Amino acid sequence: MTDGITGGQLRAMSYEELESLCEELRRNIIESVMANGGHLSSNLGMVELTVALHYVFDFPRDKVVFDVGHQCYAHKMLSGRAAGFAKLRKRGGVSGFPKREESAYDCYNTGHAGTSVSAAMGIAKARDLSGKDYSVIAVIGDGSFNNGLVYEAFNSLRQLNTNILVIINDNGMSISPTVGSMHEYLEQLATDSVEQLHRARRADIFEKFGFDYDGVYDGNDLRAMIERLTDIKGRLKTQSVILHILTKKGKGYSFCEENPEATHGIGAKPALEYSEVLGRQLCAMAENDGRITAVTAAMTGSLGLSEFFERYPGRAFDVGICEEHATVLCAALAAEGYKPYYAVYSTFLQRSFDEIVIDVCSQNLPVTFCIDRAGISGADGETHQGVFDLSFLSFIPNLTIAVPKDSAEFAEMLRFSATFGGPLAIRYPRSCGHKFGQVQPVVAGKWELLDSGDGRCVILACGERAIARAAGACRLLGERGVFPSLVNARFVKPLDEELLAGLEEPLVVTVEDNMLAGGFGSLVAERFAEDTSKRVKIFGYGDKFIGQGGIDELMDDCGLSPEAIAAYIEKNI
Amino acid sequence: MTDGITGGQLRAMSYEELESLCEELRRNIIESVMANGGHLSSNLGMVELTVALHYVFDFPRDKVVFDVGHQCYAHKMLSGRAAGFAKLRKRGGVSGFPKREESAYDCYNTGHAGTSVSAAMGIAKARDLSGKDYSVIAVIGDGSFNNGLVYEAFNSLRQLNTNILVIINDNGMSISPTVGSMHEYLEQLATDSVEQLHRARRADIFEKFGFDYDGVYDGNDLRAMIERLTDIKGRLKTQSVILHILTKKGKGYSFCEENPEATHGIGAKPALEYSEVLGRQLCAMAENDGRITAVTAAMTGSLGLSEFFERYPGRAFDVGICEEHATVLCAALAAEGYKPYYAVYSTFLQRSFDEIVIDVCSQNLPVTFCIDRAGISGADGETHQGVFDLSFLSFIPNLTIAVPKDSAEFAEMLRFSATFGGPLAIRYPRSCGHKFGQVQPVVAGKWELLDSGDGRCVILACGERAIARAAGACRLLGERGVFPSLVNARFVKPLDEELLAGLEEPLVVTVEDNMLAGGFGSLVAERFAEDTSKRVKIFGYGDKFIGQGGIDELMDDCGLSPEAIAAYIEKNI
Repeated sequence: MTDGITGGQLRAMSYEELESLCEELRRNIIESVMANGGHLSSNLGMVELTVALHYVFDFPRDKVVFDVGHQCYAHKMLSGRAAGFAKLRKRGGVSGFPKREESAYDCYNTGHAGTSVSAAMGIAKARDLSGKDYSVIAVIGDGSFNNGLVYEAFNSLRQLNTNILVIINDNGMSISPTVGSMHEYLEQLATDSVEQLHRARRADIFEKFGFDYDGVYDGNDLRAMIERLTDIKGRLKTQSVILHILTKKGKGYSFCEENPEATHGIGAKPALEYSEVLGRQLCAMAENDGRITAVTAAMTGSLGLSEFFERYPGRAFDVGICEEHATVLCAALAAEGYKPYYAVYSTFLQRSFDEIVIDVCSQNLPVTFCIDRAGISGADGETHQGVFDLSFLSFIPNLTIAVPKDSAEFAEMLRFSATFGGPLAIRYPRSCGHKFGQVQPVVAGKWELLDSGDGRCVILACGERAIARAAGACRLLGERGVFPSLVNARFVKPLDEELLAGLEEPLVVTVEDNMLAGGFGSLVAERFAEDTSKRVKIFGYGDKFIGQGGIDELMDDCGLSPEAIAAYIEKNI
Repeated sequence: MTDGITGGQLRAMSYEELESLCEELRRNIIESVMANGGHLSSNLGMVELTVALHYVFDFPRDKVVFDVGHQCYAHKMLSGRAAGFAKLRKRGGVSGFPKREESAYDCYNTGHAGTSVSAAMGIAKARDLSGKDYSVIAVIGDGSFNNGLVYEAFNSLRQLNTNILVIINDNGMSISPTVGSMHEYLEQLATDSVEQLHRARRADIFEKFGFDYDGVYDGNDLRAMIERLTDIKGRLKTQSVILHILTKKGKGYSFCEENPEATHGIGAKPALEYSEVLGRQLCAMAENDGRITAVTAAMTGSLGLSEFFERYPGRAFDVGICEEHATVLCAALAAEGYKPYYAVYSTFLQRSFDEIVIDVCSQNLPVTFCIDRAGISGADGETHQGVFDLSFLSFIPNLTIAVPKDSAEFAEMLRFSATFGGPLAIRYPRSCGHKFGQVQPVVAGKWELLDSGDGRCVILACGERAIARAAGACRLLGERGVFPSLVNARFVKPLDEELLAGLEEPLVVTVEDNMLAGGFGSLVAERFAEDTSKRVKIFGYGDKFIGQGGIDELMDDCGLSPEAIAAYIEKNI
């Protein structure tokens, strides 16, 4: 096994031994990901680069920051964590992302795109201030390289007056194929059959920002990588360098090589029903409504928009991993009378926060945010949980927030959105396993009574998973002769004031797949703050980051089990 | 007066008449800003460009988006709003920023940096989809041009396949002098005494992104501007163009020309005491603690950091208008053992939301956010109110949030921060007018009892303005024989659980200079949700954007007057 291999041992190996180490790493990655889910093709493409980095540099004394961080598996295996890969992404197992708390070899945690260059500069600046002399490396994919944060960091390199190595790992893909003029420029640099001199002249964009540009256009050629990195390591004392390498996403695994988008992230059960509903419904609506446009930030397929992009290419925009630009683009389209839908994962919507407030909501423009992977997302851990969205959206004026009980209601909410005149957010988890009966017509701020109870307690549950758990609690309580009313609280904003004003139950319980602070329950608690006739208990996530694990086990851990809800109600009615 | 002048009338004028129109506009700008506050030097520099735009283009059929928007005064005067300038930035008067609701000539509202290019692209794309043929222009300063959002938009121009004009209004300043390699590049383009051919080759960065580059290096030369814009207008049918112009910030007003940073924004009463405390205290702490570093996003002076930058240039970083990069840089410095302070206006901190969650708080790194201009900021209106920060920070795990009662307590909180080991946010308004007695030692999560009452009501007030208003309510109530306890709730997170658990008063009132939803009071309401012995009433801002006006009048409008608070308490004890 590779566990225990150190940089020193690598340097004692022949190229042949290193090549077979690469094969072994590749086999381990495939086995772990097939068993546990995770990022397959990006990690397969990174094997030679990672071995070369560990050969040439001296980690953890030298520091490497992986952008997004999903491509760090080989790095983890070469830093004493190969054994942990049997439980990759499971509770208690190795994380699929760099984690400072896991190893000294992980110097900076990542998860969202574009932070690596800024972080490497900060680390390098700290090194300079401390009078130390190690090397600092950022490894960034061509997809992340589109993010504006990278430009901000590049722009300040000369001023910060420090030296770093940025490795652009160019495989032509983010989750979707990489778009944009920067990527075209990278392609030109890599593919023109011109002498090095000519190439150097054409890499002057990077030189303007203070970087030497260098390229290895077969980044899976281990010997070439080691030689080039060795040379660069010396230059880093006095100079910042970009090393542009081409790698093959999915390298060494033919299905992956042929299907890089489908195999970017492998989940244990790919049940993408909400995204399928989004794609189908938007396509149907767009047929009769030329105002409907769709925007994504490099996630066409995983959000269910592939068919829309094929059928309506003139009205479908993938702007790359640029969540802020995507949001402003939507605001402007809406300002001119169009009806844009911005589909995005909950965790990545965080990047658009300011533009949601200023561009969309303060102008009261009819942009619809389709927020996928909301709630606990599970195995990717802290940086990918979609548990903050209700909290960072619920206080924004002019915004309406809807949460469907199941995929059928989601379709109905999308139909509702077509004629809705203001900013609208619809949040939903990845997969749906439940059907909660007929869908009632969707009216803004109107909830649905699912079950009438015995008048002692009402549960206001928000979203599929919360309703499933609340319904489970109701079943348990029914066995004990307690019958709460159960409400599908399908709008978080506005609240159903009429329903709330008419509530007779003295105990009001809320359940949601979101943080407690600032979420749905918090709004309900605030609503009843002056009313001493009601006891309000809110179930949601407490004040800590939620690590990796199964969705159900994490929800149980956080106190959202049907048993815990039922126990509270039984005790407090 | 200029009111009523249209593009058609401009085109009938001679250059001499246009020049005197410019002088008249300049006089009106100076008068209005001197009377009402506002952005002086940037607007003086924009006069010729604005007249040229209105001469050449046909507004509102053609569309112009002003980045940030603070430089639109001449545009407003030339679109029927000159009379409104007597009440510039006052309640009911003309806004200091573009406002769709104010005029058809304002097609897109701005306020935060870097959105104009994205917005212009969205508007242009909507034009293309609708088969129309007007021109779309983004006017952006060289300071905003550092923002990553601009790069994101540039990168997607070819793919969006639309044509826009981007005018880079280069005056070498944002609020502070513009930094960064991009600005150096612009400077080279403008100042090298080389033939046009050579220049064109060197502007290839912009060409790679799909723009023709053109320059007018005296942007205050009206005739040159009109001629060049006329030429460009024709090319826009088939091509996107960058027009790079150099203007003189403060043009035509000698004090401004010589003091561009001080006169960027003129406030009615520049009482910058909190920022002075920040600068003085950080300097004092840095003398004995080499870990202390300071980061700003183009606002050194207005945040009080000028002295720190002079005394500790190696530990002071102005990264330009790049709030995300600033935050990641702080996280990385902290990861390596440094103690970074990121000073920023509340409204611009919104841009860092994702990086606060992921980079700083999920890694639990000791970055201190010094959040200036928190609460209602007044005359700049909707896009600049700092009323969301408690709501978007209060649910983030690992973050501690402090709110000083006055500038003396702020100094004490800064001393406290030096040894505090986690992420910390300290929020404060611009100016301070109150002193609330001795400062008690600062302990995380410990509040201060300012006054013991008669046991019927306690007011938990958060921050200087809220305490001032609560104290005002107490005075009014005292005259009527009601004596609430008054607490300086100086930590929003964590709450003072010991104090809360010991409260005997049945009526708990909170007051804060922030939105109701998700703010301090919301946390208190949630804390007492299950406790039917307490009635909780929270005072803060309701669910709407707050427009321009005086700080006190806006707070009163929002129901935070001492009278309103006293009336509620008197009625409900």
